[in-house]
This record gives sequence, structure tokens and C-alpha cells, in this order.
Amino acid sequence: MKVTVVVGGVGGARFLQGVKRALGLPGAEHRVTAVVNTGDDVWLHGLRICPDLDTCMYTLGGGIDTERGWGRTGETWTVREELAAYGAGSEWFGLGDRDIATHLVRTRMLRAGYPLSAVTEALCARWQPGVDLLPMSDDRVETHVVVDDPDTGQRQAIHFQEWWIRHQAALPAHSIVPVGAEESTPAPGVLDAVADADIVLLAPSNPVVSVGTVLAVPGIRTALAKTAAPVVGISPIVADRPVRGMADACLTAIGVATTAEAVGRHYGSRRDGEGLLDGWLVHTGDGAEVPGVEVRAVPLLMSDVDATAEMVRAAFSVAGVSVD
Amino acid sequence: MKVTVVVGGVGGARFLQGVKRALGLPGAEHRVTAVVNTGDDVWLHGLRICPDLDTCMYTLGGGIDTERGWGRTGETWTVREELAAYGAGSEWFGLGDRDIATHLVRTRMLRAGYPLSAVTEALCARWQPGVDLLPMSDDRVETHVVVDDPDTGQRQAIHFQEWWIRHQAALPAHSIVPVGAEESTPAPGVLDAVADADIVLLAPSNPVVSVGTVLAVPGIRTALAKTAAPVVGISPIVADRPVRGMADACLTAIGVATTAEAVGRHYGSRRDGEGLLDGWLVHTGDGAEVPGVEVRAVPLLMSDVDATAEMVRAAFSVAGVSVD
Repeated sequence: MKVTVVVGGVGGARFLQGVKRALGLPGAEHRVTAVVNTGDDVWLHGLRICPDLDTCMYTLGGGIDTERGWGRTGETWTVREELAAYGAGSEWFGLGDRDIATHLVRTRMLRAGYPLSAVTEALCARWQPGVDLLPMSDDRVETHVVVDDPDTGQRQAIHFQEWWIRHQAALPAHSIVPVGAEESTPAPGVLDAVADADIVLLAPSNPVVSVGTVLAVPGIRTALAKTAAPVVGISPIVADRPVRGMADACLTAIGVATTAEAVGRHYGSRRDGEGLLDGWLVHTGDGAEVPGVEVRAVPLLMSDVDATAEMVRAAFSVAGVSVD
Repeated sequence: MKVTVVVGGVGGARFLQGVKRALGLPGAEHRVTAVVNTGDDVWLHGLRICPDLDTCMYTLGGGIDTERGWGRTGETWTVREELAAYGAGSEWFGLGDRDIATHLVRTRMLRAGYPLSAVTEALCARWQPGVDLLPMSDDRVETHVVVDDPDTGQRQAIHFQEWWIRHQAALPAHSIVPVGAEESTPAPGVLDAVADADIVLLAPSNPVVSVGTVLAVPGIRTALAKTAAPVVGISPIVADRPVRGMADACLTAIGVATTAEAVGRHYGSRRDGEGLLDGWLVHTGDGAEVPGVEVRAVPLLMSDVDATAEMVRAAFSVAGVSVD
């Protein structure tokens, strides 16, 4: 079976663990392709940092700090402290020593002319994540957030990471813009992974800055609309709150309520030719009606890999797909 | 008093400590300018590394590992281990975590268009070395060594660092070439520092790959010949052996014997219009005759800063210069 999953960072990475478990990977003949958001990517200190790709790679490759959910286990912070001693800026970003090695290898390859997809494949040769991790695009796309500067009151666009980490998404966002998305093209393999899939899943990642950014790459939304595979989304909103992260701040910026129903409707039904979903999983107890979409309520807390695998099986079931 | 010193790495840095001590720095009104070899500089893992500049900066700024003589005190090696796990290569190079922060700041500034001299000044804002550290040139000059490949026997040029560190200078050098030197120009301030000095010192650094490389930058040798200041060299060879490092391997490559006299003659006398020296300090017990150069024998072991300051005072004395 071929499963293609649209993912962001921490939530997406954990969801992919559940997909692997549900399929009996490693060992089974099934293939999982993750189309990973790269709108969070950022240049810092001359290094190209891809938080979502790395979170997926480390999580699936056994290198993640499971407490934090991001970055490397056993991480140290020497370089960061030294950069601060130089007054190099961006000290709000959690740049660990182990993590920096990844960024050095990536940056060097990018500067040598390799596309991000090839770089990611090279990095994964070490981590063996057991799924094909594809950046949504090899082109530079960076999500920016339009806010009022807290000091001057002037409206300005800042990088998503600055908004998300430095300001903890507490500055109201007037808009969220995936800069460069319009001119970007899907990375090699992305459209085929959607077209050839037996099922496509939208992970319970941020609907705006993770899944939404992937969808902003021209061609991906159309591929999702046209694929013969069923498309099932999993709500990242449980009991009117994001399961993790600050998705509510992002949803507010695009005028969508922080409810499983509102996000389901935002994604929309494939049947009317505009939307994305055939099925929509919401958490037990969350009511949701999404016209033209089969909604099912199951436990959606990714408390461990087995629980997550159970979610994935529910998604297969909604789509009428069986793993054998 | 204005003292200009031509230096390489570890030996040069320690010599500069002695110059400061002899002049009563910090506190006194004297000014020391170091013209630092950059032929050892290398790109590794996408980082621009300047071993001699950094050794001087860390040594004079109190950040050096005094045991090793290079690199940062309290250094850790996490990034290096991770790079090795990626198979990123160049694992023979001692790239510490603290040190990497320096290289990140430098590389970022260089890529932004700042010349190395401006970058060095910016880094020194943190370290406050108490002397003006000038790279010999803002242009890229990299010393390469022509050797026979130990596996294939084929003659090839390798970077000085690879020869020096990876092969411990044990591969016989057919020649040593400062690649790029011919097209390089002295960094801002270098020629003025030589012309305006009250005394110029050639530190007991490697005569081939440190002092020799600085001299290979067009204009510097002429400035040394023309300056009104006396020029005094300090022998890096004591009792027919390098005080530290593997200068003998370098001297052999250029056909110069590993003796204080041979190195003094290699530098030569200013009086004949070809050479560099007015004075030449050799170690007590080392006989040396260098035509046209005043040779003096004094203890030349830089066992501590006071002993080094004593060497510097002897150099002043040979030149007839007094510190007041």
C-alpha cells in the first residue's frame, strides 16, 4: 500500500510514527511518503534550518528529544552561548550543537548546488526514517506574519519563526503569507506521491502554517483534487483547542474558528470540486458537520505510538481502505 | 612606540603576549600591530576557518586553551562528532563547538560582503586582544603542499592543513605554494603599519608557511625593505630543531637547513637591498653568522610571558630602540 501524508513538524512527525506502526513498518511492503512543509525554514547564522524536515527525520530516525518534541536528544548548547557572546542575534532560536551539524551538512550541499530534496535524502541516509521525506518544494518559500511592531506600532512582516518562537504567537497576526509560494514548484516526487497513492492523509498539523503552506505550492492542491486515492484529514483541534502549538492564533488570522468543524469546512469537500477531503476525523465528543465529507469521531490524542496507529487505522477505515 | 610584528599562529600569539608585556600593555601608550598569516585559512564544512588569526585572538583575549596552544579553553566537540556521523569528512581537523561560533560569525559576514579585515575587527570587539590584528590580506591565499599521494604515488597538491594536521607533515614536500598570493594585495593598514613602525619584528613563527607566506603578498617585502624602522627577526630554530611545530619539514622543502644561521641567511640582510633583517636573535649557544646582520644570542624559549618579554627587550636592544 502506498500512503502519502501531508505533514508539518512535531505533530506531523508523531503522526508518521503512527502511520508506520499501523502499516507494520519496518518490515512490511508498504510505502509511506511524507510531503513536508518547508515554510518554517529559515536562514540563521548563515545556516539553512528546516525545522519540520528535521523534526520528522529525527523523530522517525530515533534522534529526537522526546520531551521537547523537537531537536536532538542529549543536545548541548555551546555554540548558541558563544554566538550570544558575539552578539550575533537570533538567540531566541533553539540552535543546538548536534542540530548544527545537520545544518552545516545541509547548507554546504545547498551552496554546492544540490536541491533541498537531494540534501534531505542524503541526510536521511544516516537517519533511515523508514518513510520518504519529501520537502514540499525545492524552492525557497518562507512564511511571514504581518504584525504590529510592539514597540513602534508599525505594521511589518516578520519571519514565522520569529513570530512563533520569539513572540510565542502572542502578537496578533493580520495575515500569514507564504512568501515565494506562488513562484514555487513541487519538489520531485511530490505530485506523483499524491497521484499514485492508495490513500492521502492530512496529518493533524497546523492547518494554516503547515498543511496550508504545502497547499500553497501551485500544483499540490490540484493533485489532491484529482488523485484517485481517498483523502482523509485528521483534526488538530480537540475540544476547541489545538492539541499542541498555537494553531488558534493562525486560524484567527485567516478567519477560521478554532473548532474541528471549522477546520474541516476550511479544508472542504472534494465533491464540490473546491475542497480537499473525503473523510474527516474529529476527536470523540467533538461534533462536526462538514457537507460532503464523511466525519468520524475517534480518540485523537497521540499519547503514544499505538494510540496514534489507532487513529491512522480509523482514517483508513473512513476511506474504506484496508491494510493487507 | 609603534611595534609591528609579522606572526603566524601559536608561536606568534605567544610572542605577541611578550611584546605586550615588554611594552607594559595594557595601560601604556604604545601600539602593537600584528600582520597575521592567513595562508593556513581553509574552508571546511562551509565555514571559513582562520587558524592563525583565531589563535592570536584567543591567546591575547584570554580564550585560548593554554595546554593545546590552539582552540578554545573548555572546548567541546559535539558538532565534530555529529559531522563524523554524517560522514561529512575532514574529521582530522580539530573543529570545536566554541570555535565554530567564531567561524559562523566570520563566514556569515564574509558572505555578506565584509572583507576579512573588517570581520576580524568585529570578532576582536569581543576578545579585546590589545593589539591590532590585521590579516596579511583580505584576498584568499591558501598554502598548498605538493606531495606524492601515499596510496597512488601520484604527485598532487593538498591544502596545507591536510598536510600539517592529517599527515603531520610526514609526507615529504616537493614544494610549498601560497596559492593566490601573487594576485593578492595587503589588507588595509598592513603597509602603513610597516612604514610607520618604530620597530618591526619577525616573530619566531614558521619561516616558510607563516612569515614566508606573509612575505609572499606583493608589497609587503618591499615595505619591509623601505621602512625607516629597524627590522629584527627572532629565530624559531633552537639547537637545530624547531621550538614547536614541524618547521624542519617546511625548511627542507625550500632547501634551507634547520639551523638558526640558515634561517637568518634565508631572511637575509637589508643592507644588500635583498634581505629583510637588521638584527637576528638566536638562542644562547646557537652560533650564527649572517652577513650584514647584527646577531645576538639570548635565551629564546617562550616558557612564560616574562621570558618572552625578555626576548622582546633583547630585540629592541639589538635594534637600538628603547621603550619609554
